[in-house]
Amino acid sequence: MPMHKEERAMEKVLIAGEWREAHASGGFRAEDPKTGQAIGPEYPVSRWEDCDLALNAATEAFKEMRGIELEKIAAFLEQYAANLEVNADALVAMAASETALPASPRLSQVELPRTTGQLRQAAAAAREGSWQNVVIDTKNNIRTHFAPIGPVVVFGPNNFPFAFNGIAGGDFAAAIAAGNPVIAKAHPSHPGTSRLLAEQALAAVKQTGLPAATVQMIYALANEDGLRLVSDPRTAATGFTGSSAGGLRLKAAADAVGKPIYLEMSSINPVVVLPAALQERGETIARELATSCLMGSGQFCTSPNMILLTQSPEAESFVATMTSAFEAAPSQPLLSRGGLEHLSKCVDELVGAGAKVVTGGKREPGAAFCYDNTILRVSGADWLEAPETLEKEAFGNATMVVMAKNVDEAQQIVEHMEGNLTGALYSANSGADDADYDRMAPALRARVGRLLNDKAPTGVAVSPAMNHGGPYPSTGHPGFTSVGIPVAIHRFAKLDCYDNVRAHRLPKALQDKNPNGTMWRSIDGSWSRGDVAGS
Amino acid sequence: MPMHKEERAMEKVLIAGEWREAHASGGFRAEDPKTGQAIGPEYPVSRWEDCDLALNAATEAFKEMRGIELEKIAAFLEQYAANLEVNADALVAMAASETALPASPRLSQVELPRTTGQLRQAAAAAREGSWQNVVIDTKNNIRTHFAPIGPVVVFGPNNFPFAFNGIAGGDFAAAIAAGNPVIAKAHPSHPGTSRLLAEQALAAVKQTGLPAATVQMIYALANEDGLRLVSDPRTAATGFTGSSAGGLRLKAAADAVGKPIYLEMSSINPVVVLPAALQERGETIARELATSCLMGSGQFCTSPNMILLTQSPEAESFVATMTSAFEAAPSQPLLSRGGLEHLSKCVDELVGAGAKVVTGGKREPGAAFCYDNTILRVSGADWLEAPETLEKEAFGNATMVVMAKNVDEAQQIVEHMEGNLTGALYSANSGADDADYDRMAPALRARVGRLLNDKAPTGVAVSPAMNHGGPYPSTGHPGFTSVGIPVAIHRFAKLDCYDNVRAHRLPKALQDKNPNGTMWRSIDGSWSRGDVAGS
Repeated sequence: MPMHKEERAMEKVLIAGEWREAHASGGFRAEDPKTGQAIGPEYPVSRWEDCDLALNAATEAFKEMRGIELEKIAAFLEQYAANLEVNADALVAMAASETALPASPRLSQVELPRTTGQLRQAAAAAREGSWQNVVIDTKNNIRTHFAPIGPVVVFGPNNFPFAFNGIAGGDFAAAIAAGNPVIAKAHPSHPGTSRLLAEQALAAVKQTGLPAATVQMIYALANEDGLRLVSDPRTAATGFTGSSAGGLRLKAAADAVGKPIYLEMSSINPVVVLPAALQERGETIARELATSCLMGSGQFCTSPNMILLTQSPEAESFVATMTSAFEAAPSQPLLSRGGLEHLSKCVDELVGAGAKVVTGGKREPGAAFCYDNTILRVSGADWLEAPETLEKEAFGNATMVVMAKNVDEAQQIVEHMEGNLTGALYSANSGADDADYDRMAPALRARVGRLLNDKAPTGVAVSPAMNHGGPYPSTGHPGFTSVGIPVAIHRFAKLDCYDNVRAHRLPKALQDKNPNGTMWRSIDGSWSRGDVAGS
Repeated sequence: MPMHKEERAMEKVLIAGEWREAHASGGFRAEDPKTGQAIGPEYPVSRWEDCDLALNAATEAFKEMRGIELEKIAAFLEQYAANLEVNADALVAMAASETALPASPRLSQVELPRTTGQLRQAAAAAREGSWQNVVIDTKNNIRTHFAPIGPVVVFGPNNFPFAFNGIAGGDFAAAIAAGNPVIAKAHPSHPGTSRLLAEQALAAVKQTGLPAATVQMIYALANEDGLRLVSDPRTAATGFTGSSAGGLRLKAAADAVGKPIYLEMSSINPVVVLPAALQERGETIARELATSCLMGSGQFCTSPNMILLTQSPEAESFVATMTSAFEAAPSQPLLSRGGLEHLSKCVDELVGAGAKVVTGGKREPGAAFCYDNTILRVSGADWLEAPETLEKEAFGNATMVVMAKNVDEAQQIVEHMEGNLTGALYSANSGADDADYDRMAPALRARVGRLLNDKAPTGVAVSPAMNHGGPYPSTGHPGFTSVGIPVAIHRFAKLDCYDNVRAHRLPKALQDKNPNGTMWRSIDGSWSRGDVAGS
């Protein structure tokens, strides 16, 4: 994010339904990860004034959205998805230029369809309404549901320019589905992509008649303004996906004033391959994990950063197979200069802490943001001596093999791990690992949001049963997920109870008549799609 | 809580299934609020060692509880409720002596049955299992539910010696129902009551074969040890009911290390009486609110601390009626010396900030912890000039009338209020207030957890539809409630997802077969009490 202080034409920010000149403290340009060269126009780093204007507009939009028809929210989300499809070529080309992710299949066949799919799932959930978790107690005439919380700020990460973008991704879709306006803080590594997305979001807002400030976007902020934004009285809640350092700063600011903040931060996503599985199908698993580790240059939130094995000849073959696969695969550019620098620093620190380089371990020559596909290795005993330094996420195309002496030691290692999004256990199909599985699984279970069997963690299905969350510090709270409609929507809701409120004044979802005949409601202890009996 | 440093026999703490000598830094005795005299034996202020031992024991207990039969948890909760009933006379007598709350009806006919009722509702929820919110995606074979989070620390308040007691109340019941061990921090204003409760809890643990350290209790702690307790790595989550000052300190400590903490803190519970309701039935409402304000000497979490009226002759009559009722009712002792001092200080500060004393406003002579039933009054304009000082909870038998110039000003006042547990709106049955209601209700709705019509907020029904929560600073998060099974249980759970996990390794709740035929589960998008189809 090279800064330019001089006066020049700059892209505009989206505030209150208009693309406006930013109150800018400076500007920056995107960089092509393949060349390291600045590309595209200059984008503003907003001063606080832009946040202030956006917060005022969002506050007004939220008032207008009160009691809005669920159908209208659904229509917006669907229109937005359709708009993205119409503009797919331009979006994919822009994202490819700013991120160096492959246009095909990754951006056009995988990530964009996933993004439009999320928007449509959110639309369906908003229309159907069950996410509100309506509970009706007819005897006491007390009725409760989850209701929109107010203006939501979403900070998008660098690694999914569409699917986690602050103006289009999962947090955005969930916050809107709940009925909230969103102020997106775009990630500065793909500002052009964010601009194109925001243009389509704004178009959809106009096409479907939502308040103009339902979607707003700024590109970059000084750190202190980010802290101010999440803790401003007008902000109701924040969604953040990104680095631990940034997330924890924002968390502290939001916590101090009691504002909900949902964070998805770092995760090393341990994978444990039990001894008999190594014997039975070590080579297959090694190839599968190598693919998983290098997917998107290892810049997936659930990329396996730690492979935990137990000493044996098969474990050595496993490492050799993974090493060959890492060496055979060309390294892909990382998403940003900062990402390259961070990976390089992390690997150096891990080596400094005692990890050995099996392959890779250095930046590639040239201007591209490329780092060698890297495997590090450390013994279980060494890991246990310094988990606080060796349990570090090296975000990118690097992973660390931890070679435990035996399953006992492997279990100890798991018991010393911090919270993670995922943990995977490979065990023999023969059942020969079952006793070891039964010892390892509870320890791993306690430390992860999603426990996998015999499967790499990098596929995050957009399923109602998905948990893309986990214990701290992988997120800020182990009871929420950022992927998985409808549960993800709850993050951006407050629990609204109505006690003895006159029937006609109740929100439609809480009235005796089921508002759409599809919403599941808990009425006197039973789930039903019907009306309150006798009504 | 008078401290005694000399060596003498002291009550024991409940750790790891035994009543043990405390590692005490000092001791304290309860005080009779009617006489101000110390009563009963000396109780220990625990040093950190006691917390450390309790945390280790809870950690082991939690391991044993893994995969426990739901029935066993339910049996414990029911046995405990039954034990309390058998020992009702002793419990009521002890609580009456320590709190001066009436033995009858309050303690024996209301609060104890409520407490046993909560335990039985929690038992039913644990047994039935729907609280786990099971979501099964058969196509992807991903399955998720809420699972126990780990050792839970519960800090009980002074105002409900049974129903919110750390070792017997709502947070305790919810944490146990989820499958967690509890470390209770009893409130030092009723240590004998807490001891009797804990004895019955321990008996029930033994009767039903739960791990001995499922329930543990200490009486008092230095502030710094409380902070250490909620942020210890072995603590999974904390429930706290009490003062803002204490709650916010604990919140900061827990937040800093990403530990969930659920707080119920102060709330002024505004009641708005609209103009036509004042005309139509002002006197009735005034009497109803006076009763609500003085219930339990005004020491209910939902006691109305602010009555918002609009200027009119009827409003003056309303104040006169409330004043007569406050003056006619004998003042009851407050729960503790500290509570008396706090109320006295708060009233003085409110008067210092411009509130006028309508009646009361001073401590009563004598040794009892009695304060005059007190009504303060301030104009809407004055309130709007200093909401930060006038929006103060004077916990106890004091309330403040805010007299707004008109409904516009009343609305402004509501818009300047902080988060509260409840907000009540009285409007005319004739419909003459409806336009004003429609303006006021959204503003109030945004600031409270429970919105009431034509009803005082002090009745908190233990209903699945109850929300005993609200926006910050009344609690720490607007999406959770501390009363209302099963929703209250979610606070003490983490979201556990199983991805491709082999069928026999899944928790019973997630297996194809519905484990008890009563648990509601969302299977491929539909709620069902059946098995997964085809299984």
